[in-house]
Amino acid sequence: MKVKVITQILEANDRIAAENRKKFKDANIYVINLMSAPGAGKTSLLERTIKELNGKIKIGVIEGDIAGIDDALKIESLGAPVVQINTGGACHLDANMISDVIDDLPLKELNLIIIENVGNLVCPAEFKVGEDMKVMLLSVAEGDDKPLKYPLMFQESSALILNKIDLLPYTNADLGKIKRDSLTLNPGLKVFDISCKTGEGINEWANWLQELLK
Amino acid sequence: MKVKVITQILEANDRIAAENRKKFKDANIYVINLMSAPGAGKTSLLERTIKELNGKIKIGVIEGDIAGIDDALKIESLGAPVVQINTGGACHLDANMISDVIDDLPLKELNLIIIENVGNLVCPAEFKVGEDMKVMLLSVAEGDDKPLKYPLMFQESSALILNKIDLLPYTNADLGKIKRDSLTLNPGLKVFDISCKTGEGINEWANWLQELLK
Repeated sequence: MKVKVITQILEANDRIAAENRKKFKDANIYVINLMSAPGAGKTSLLERTIKELNGKIKIGVIEGDIAGIDDALKIESLGAPVVQINTGGACHLDANMISDVIDDLPLKELNLIIIENVGNLVCPAEFKVGEDMKVMLLSVAEGDDKPLKYPLMFQESSALILNKIDLLPYTNADLGKIKRDSLTLNPGLKVFDISCKTGEGINEWANWLQELLK
Repeated sequence: MKVKVITQILEANDRIAAENRKKFKDANIYVINLMSAPGAGKTSLLERTIKELNGKIKIGVIEGDIAGIDDALKIESLGAPVVQINTGGACHLDANMISDVIDDLPLKELNLIIIENVGNLVCPAEFKVGEDMKVMLLSVAEGDDKPLKYPLMFQESSALILNKIDLLPYTNADLGKIKRDSLTLNPGLKVFDISCKTGEGINEWANWLQELLK
């Protein structure tokens, strides 16, 4: 079997990301870059998190999607400030896109901004947007081979949220393997088992966020 | 709510794709570009398809992954000729990558080449690689909002394979909505319901492929 390795130089956008970060820091806002494959449950997690932390942490959201405003409408219906970015063809958010919309959020009112990246396990991990922390979500229905096949996102993230654990009995996925491989790639990774459908584990995740923002 | 639309010009690689296609055509090989989000089951579908068509259609595979050779090893263990491309950072295959590996496959022995693209619902749909047809796979566990959120892949594909239908009773996904929205985007789309786990529906898909190659 032939194995061909192709290298690609990716656009650097670190300078703009640093400017965004300074702006967030000056406003005393913690920023999370939330990443996952399509359909892992990023928007459902946001909805659960906003409800769980209602009255405790004031959350604003930047929604990144190729097309559509469905996710932003869901967030808006919960009363949280939200901006929708439609990237057109781009498969990830970059620092410049975030820079363009920062002032559309009521920064003075917020403690935390969660940036929901485009559903993609690859490029979002390569582009800083000005976040304090990257968090990734993996649906257990995607299988247990994802850490070794998409290592960068696991390495770049501070927390890994394993979603849809209610589906675990109906899949071949080995939750232990996912955790072992993830922690081998990134020993400092904080791992949560959750189900946005049943609500299981949301409390632990929300409490961890609260501690982080103290 | 503010909505910001960003446009991006994507690299054109149509000339090389056309060269690849001519080479495949001269060798009398039909080529499928198989695309999906991570974990939708592309490799499992390949395994099922190769077994189902054993002795009927001689299939070669080009495996595209960010990292790793696990998928290629699975294909090789079935006796099918396979080349693994590791893209490094790139989130999709392009025509140039395919051009580089065409001659590593035994073209004279093959009737069909299936190119398994990188797991990503976005960019793979934008880059022709020299295929006769694009086929996409969607796991029903990804939810029923995918056609409207990632429209291009649904529009570019000739067939949509809905995988993991064994998980349907345990999700909130509406299979009818997925099909309606997909067919609205692309009325000519051929849709298959399958489960690579149980084998349901594989026969219909394999028969369709056989008809196509007649």
